[in-house]
Formats: sequence, C-alpha cells, structure tokens
Amino acid sequence: MVENHQLVLPSHTNALGTIFGGTIMSWIDIAAAICAQKHSGEVCVTASVDALNFLNPVRLGNMVHLMAKVVFTGKSSMMVAVKVTAQELRSEKESPCVDALLTFVAVDASGKPIPVPGLELQTAEEKKDYERASERRAALLKLSRQ
Amino acid sequence: MVENHQLVLPSHTNALGTIFGGTIMSWIDIAAAICAQKHSGEVCVTASVDALNFLNPVRLGNMVHLMAKVVFTGKSSMMVAVKVTAQELRSEKESPCVDALLTFVAVDASGKPIPVPGLELQTAEEKKDYERASERRAALLKLSRQ
Amino acid sequence: MVENHQLVLPSHTNALGTIFGGTIMSWIDIAAAICAQKHSGEVCVTASVDALNFLNPVRLGNMVHLMAKVVFTGKSSMMVAVKVTAQELRSEKESPCVDALLTFVAVDASGKPIPVPGLELQTAEEKKDYERASERRAALLKLSRQ
Amino acid sequence: MVENHQLVLPSHTNALGTIFGGTIMSWIDIAAAICAQKHSGEVCVTASVDALNFLNPVRLGNMVHLMAKVVFTGKSSMMVAVKVTAQELRSEKESPCVDALLTFVAVDASGKPIPVPGLELQTAEEKKDYERASERRAALLKLSRQ
Amino acid sequence: MVENHQLVLPSHTNALGTIFGGTIMSWIDIAAAICAQKHSGEVCVTASVDALNFLNPVRLGNMVHLMAKVVFTGKSSMMVAVKVTAQELRSEKESPCVDALLTFVAVDASGKPIPVPGLELQTAEEKKDYERASERRAALLKLSRQ
Amino acid sequence: MVENHQLVLPSHTNALGTIFGGTIMSWIDIAAAICAQKHSGEVCVTASVDALNFLNPVRLGNMVHLMAKVVFTGKSSMMVAVKVTAQELRSEKESPCVDALLTFVAVDASGKPIPVPGLELQTAEEKKDYERASERRAALLKLSRQ
Repeated sequence: MVENHQLVLPSHTNALGTIFGGTIMSWIDIAAAICAQKHSGEVCVTASVDALNFLNPVRLGNMVHLMAKVVFTGKSSMMVAVKVTAQELRSEKESPCVDALLTFVAVDASGKPIPVPGLELQTAEEKKDYERASERRAALLKLSRQ
Repeated sequence: MVENHQLVLPSHTNALGTIFGGTIMSWIDIAAAICAQKHSGEVCVTASVDALNFLNPVRLGNMVHLMAKVVFTGKSSMMVAVKVTAQELRSEKESPCVDALLTFVAVDASGKPIPVPGLELQTAEEKKDYERASERRAALLKLSRQ
Repeated sequence: MVENHQLVLPSHTNALGTIFGGTIMSWIDIAAAICAQKHSGEVCVTASVDALNFLNPVRLGNMVHLMAKVVFTGKSSMMVAVKVTAQELRSEKESPCVDALLTFVAVDASGKPIPVPGLELQTAEEKKDYERASERRAALLKLSRQ
Repeated sequence: MVENHQLVLPSHTNALGTIFGGTIMSWIDIAAAICAQKHSGEVCVTASVDALNFLNPVRLGNMVHLMAKVVFTGKSSMMVAVKVTAQELRSEKESPCVDALLTFVAVDASGKPIPVPGLELQTAEEKKDYERASERRAALLKLSRQ
Repeated sequence: MVENHQLVLPSHTNALGTIFGGTIMSWIDIAAAICAQKHSGEVCVTASVDALNFLNPVRLGNMVHLMAKVVFTGKSSMMVAVKVTAQELRSEKESPCVDALLTFVAVDASGKPIPVPGLELQTAEEKKDYERASERRAALLKLSRQ
Repeated sequence: MVENHQLVLPSHTNALGTIFGGTIMSWIDIAAAICAQKHSGEVCVTASVDALNFLNPVRLGNMVHLMAKVVFTGKSSMMVAVKVTAQELRSEKESPCVDALLTFVAVDASGKPIPVPGLELQTAEEKKDYERASERRAALLKLSRQ
C-alpha cells in the first residue's frame, strides 16, 4: 500500500475555495502509479481511470490522505484502488472524499507491456476487493465493446 | 462544444518523455468543466470520471487537441465526453490518445445542486452519444450499488 | 484558427484577484505557437511580441476564450493575432480582455529559420488584418532602427 | 532598478531545450511590475507589452539576468524597459536575449488609476531612454488609432 | 508519523537530471507541516530549518519516500525529523537521500503561538531522537546568540 | 552578490494568506545556487541547508527581496548566506523575513566535486561573515558526528 498526505494550498483550489478536480486527479495518479511500480518493480503507465467519484468536497486548508493499493492483476496490467479522505484541522474526523480505480500497465524501455507478478490474496477484504475490481473490469469491457 | 489545444512541454512529461497522466487529466477536467458551465450557465464541479482510456501515448513536442461536449443531462448533472488527439509536427495525422467521460454538477453559491437545461438532441450522432452515455450511467450506477 | 478556453483559478491570479499578467501571456504564447505550427507544419519559436494590450480585467472564476490566427507571413516568419475574451458565469456577455500580435519563426532541428507557406487571403477581413499587421511590422521595424 | 536572476530548469523549457516563451514573459512581467510598484509605491497592473524581442535563445542550464527600470511616466502610467541576458556556465560572456518595454498603471483598491510621481531624468542615458520610450508610445498610439 | 511518496518527473529536476533542491525542500516542508498539524491539531507554520543534508542524488524517474515524525516539543513549537530515501526501479534498495530537521509553531487564527501537547516518549529510539533534537536545538540557540 | 525580487501571488501562499514555506525555500535555493555558480564558474548543487530562520511572516501582495552572497569557501564547497526581506506596498519599510545559510558544492559533468576559488575577504563585514559561517560549520560538523 502506498500512503500520501497533502495540504490543500490556494494553488490547488478553484474559484469556490474547494479543490480543483485536476489537482486531486494528479495526486491520485501519482499515488497509484507508485503503487503499481512497487508491485511490479517496473515502469508503469496509466492505461485507464475506471472510476473516480467525488463524495465530499475537499476545502482549502484541509489535510488530504491518499491510500493506494493493487486490487487486481492481469498479465501486464494492475488495477489500483485509491481512497482519498480529508480532515479539517481541529476535527478528529476524516471524511471520505474520492474513491478511484485506475489501471496501469508495466512497460519495458521501448514502451512494450511486460508481465507483472500476480496478487497473493490473503485477507477476506483483499478477496472482496479483487472480486469487485474483476466485475467492474468485465462490465467496463462489455460497455466499451458496444 | 469546447475546443482546446496544448503543446507538450517538458514540464508536462514523465521520465519516459510521454505525457504525465495527471497533466492530461487536468487538461480534460478544465475543458469538460468549461463545457458544462457553458451548457448550464452555472458554476459546475466535477462529480465523477466515468471513463478515461489512454489509447496512444502523447509525446514531448506533440500538439494536443481536446474536444469536449455535453452528451447527457440529468436534473442537475451533465455528462461530458472528451476526445483527445495528438499530432506530431511534420505529420498530417492526428492520433486518438484519450477518450473520457465525466459527470459535472451545477451548484449555487452555497454548493447546492441546481437544475440544468436539458439537451436538444438533433443529429443522429447526438442521439447515439446520448444513448451510450445513458447506458454507461445505468451500468455504473448498478456497479456502485453492488 | 486555434481556439482555447481556460478557467481562471486562484493559481492564475495576483493579489487583487485578477489574472496575473504572466499567466495570460503564457496562454497567449501557447495558442499563438500552435497556430504558427499548424500553418507551417514546423517547430516555431517566439520571435517577438509586437503588441499586447489589456482592455478589461480578467477575474477569478471567469471563463477565458482565446482565438489565434495567422494574419501575415514573411519568408520564415508568421504574425499571429490573438483575441482574448472573458465571460462571467450567469452572464451572456464575453468582454474583450486582451488583443495581442506576436511573430513566430519556423525553425529546423538545428534552430535555423526555414521557409513557411504564404497566406491565401480570401475574405475582406483577412485582407484588412494582413494590411494592419504589415503596417505595424513596418512601423516597428522603423522604430527599432532609430 | 530591479534586478532578478533565474536558473533555466527543465520545467521552464520547450521541446527544443530552449526557454518556453511564456516562462520568460512571466519573469519579465514580475520584474517590471515590481519596478513600477517601487517607483509609485502603489499596486500596479500590466496595461500593455509595447515591445518584446527575442535576440538570442536561452538554453537549459543558463543563468538568466533581468534588469528592469522605469523609463517614462505618464499621469498614472509608467513604461518599464527590461533587458534580459543569459550566461552559460564556464563562459564569462552574458548574451543579450530579450529586450522588452511594458506599460503599467498604478491603481487604488477599487482598481481605478491613480497618479504616479514623475521621473527625474539625470544622466544622458536616462534622457535618451525617455525619448525613445516617448516616441514609441506616440507611434503605437498612432497605430492603434488606425 | 507521516509518510509520503513522490515520483521524480522532469518538472522536478535541474539541468543535470537530478532533483532541484527547491522541489525536495517543498516536499519536506509539506510532509513536516502535516506531521506537526497532526500532532497538535492546530495550524502550524514553519519556524526554521535546523538541518537539511543531501546525502545522495535523487534522479529523474526515482521513487521518493518521505517519513516525517515529531521528535521534540517545546511550549508551542515542535521539531520534526524528515528522512528522505529514493529508489530506482528494478532495484530493491532505497538509498538515504536527505535528512532534515525542521521546527514548526502552532498558531491560532490571528497567527499567535498556542500551546501544543508534549511527546510521550516510549521506545528507546524515540528517547534518542528527542535527545539529539534537544542538543541540536541548544547548540543552534547558542550559535544564533553569538 | 545575487539579488532577486518576487511578488507574492496566491499561488505562493498557504491557507493563512502567508507564504508557503516551500515556496520561499525554492526562491532561496535558486538565488543561492546562482550565487555559488557565479563565484565558481561551475555547476553547483545544494549540499545542505545549515540554517533557515523565519523572522516575520511574508504576506500575499508583499514584494520580496533576496540577497545572496558567498561567505565561506572550502575546497569544493561554498557557504552562501541569504537575507530575505519583505515590503508592503505604501510602506517604506522592508522587514527582515528569513535568514538562511546554505552549502553548495561545485561539480563536473559526472557529478564529482571540483575545486573552487577562495574568497578574498576585504571588508570587516566580509571577515565577520566568514568567521560566523566557519564557526557554524564547525559546530554543525561536531553535531553531525555525535
């Protein structure tokens, strides 16, 4: 799992004082890419964003926490789930802000896909995550073929 | 429709000399947000990325072309399709690079959703886009409930 | 013609909440460079800013619209006119904000100027733009020799 | 006079490894704005770029030197000349890279123009700079009226 | 403890292809500030960098790992130690790259210092870190008085 | 001596409207690096931040002035002192904001340290600066060995 923390500065916000969508997508992409690279030991490139849902606004001054983990592996691809929470100062509570699922592909120096190690599913949660990712993958594949 | 053009500078790239995922997601988010704001005449915030697929790498020095259009409207939400193509200099050809579908919500000053005008579907292409977006929306909704 | 759209975020502004001059100059330079590259099919570098006038302030939250077109061609140089307008949300009106005229030069891999295709002037507006650019070019040349 | 120094990093360059036009325009705008603010003691906004000529390329790794000075004053406006030179390491020589002339206007809290102190021209060079700026101003005014 | 991960992109580097000092200082400052804010539950501002040593170069493409922890507390101040390591892909090894020690102060809405909770030192390592930070603090205080 | 000026824009600030620590560290690093490169005529990399103290807050809209000078030289290393002051508009006064001391090392193309010219101490201030830097260097060396 890869964990990251950010502080929401004015340079990250939109005119409403909440986070600009592109900023949080960049933070998610970095955390997920490092997660895929740590799993595979190879350079990984973003293949798709399979889901990315904003649940609650992230505000100027919030502390943001990102947790990324590989939940599914194909031959050269990995699906990475990213959970983003935000915390206001003087509050104990972390609110869920964004849930995302991205697919990365491991590539060699010429940019060609190369095999990645499989996941060893151990906990019940890991097995559930794997199944959900697998279902979403199948559903998206079906949608993209229509 | 909102059209944007970008030039891929070193500050937009990753260590491979292709575009960093977060950069292109920011460009897509900006183009789609403006498109939603032009449709609704209101401030719009990103609600979700429903699909975002990298089709071909975008390289340093490429000219990038983004085209965003509203393809589906709900009560206060709009789905915006973004097509990104890239062109190498001295080449006539624009390669498709990213296809994305995002949902935006129009909000008032306090951040509450407000109604948006419906789409007037005129061409066959508009009707097809509407249907595809609508199906994907239904499929994603079903997935998120599981 | 190259069209671009931007949304004014806090990271683009100065302490007054209006756009920072350098931000809008960067946006103008990118749009104009792409325009010159599309006309010539070659890498183009900025040779000069021949005029750039701020007509009205651009504010945080505004949607900005840039339109760039080649208005004059020399042997390896192209003059590109850029019109920038800004629109407040909930307003139909686009206010003119910046008018600019820049010169680009097409270069080969070693940075040497190379010939560019001439302009085919068709409409009355194109002919008028050409004449105005040509006059300004002559006037600036005269000034720079003094 | 306001002096600034910069180091050209990859984030400042274009695909050719020379400086991106928008980067150097931002550096020029900042140096000139501070110069106008120091002269007037008031907030100043960019009114126009009256000339900006690239004389020699600025390359990755170069040290860049900017010198800005007020050369002409109107009622609430100031013309600021900026000279930009670049130096390669292990070379004694500073090459002239950009010459620019910008107009700034001093504004009050509501954005309205307010008077600025006049220039006290003392050296022959200052008088010459004043005259050249004054001529260019007149010529540009004439052009803009056509 | 606050953990962060970064991927070194061209926009983070200097002309040598290693990380630009200011980039890594920003990453260290963010990680340390969040760490101090999590300890105190208050807004914290940087008071000083007490030590920051580059041990090994960080290169383009490296994965960077930052670990920040509060090692000493005063009345309203906290000293935060940050260890930065870098990992090349296809290598198991993380090299130590930067060791830093910063002091933050918790402030109220008006910017005035406010008390922070003390540290509960439990492990031998925590006690050693506390002592080292305390000694350095005393030595720096003595130096600054000379 | 290397002098730099900056204008504090929203993109440089934190949620309090004062300057983000990482921004000012980047500005200090750039000014000090250029100073070391001008002294040695070679590429210089940051080796350490030996001291960096925030004395007064720097606010949105302030004009910031950085002055960097080499105060001590070793075989291939140089210590650079940087003084940062900030000035509010409509105020004559420059407040001291940050005092910093950094060490840079001159390197050849392969990154190996190379000798740098010594300092010629002429004024009483230069001699005092040299002594203070030398003492701090010795004290820090002693601390790092413990």
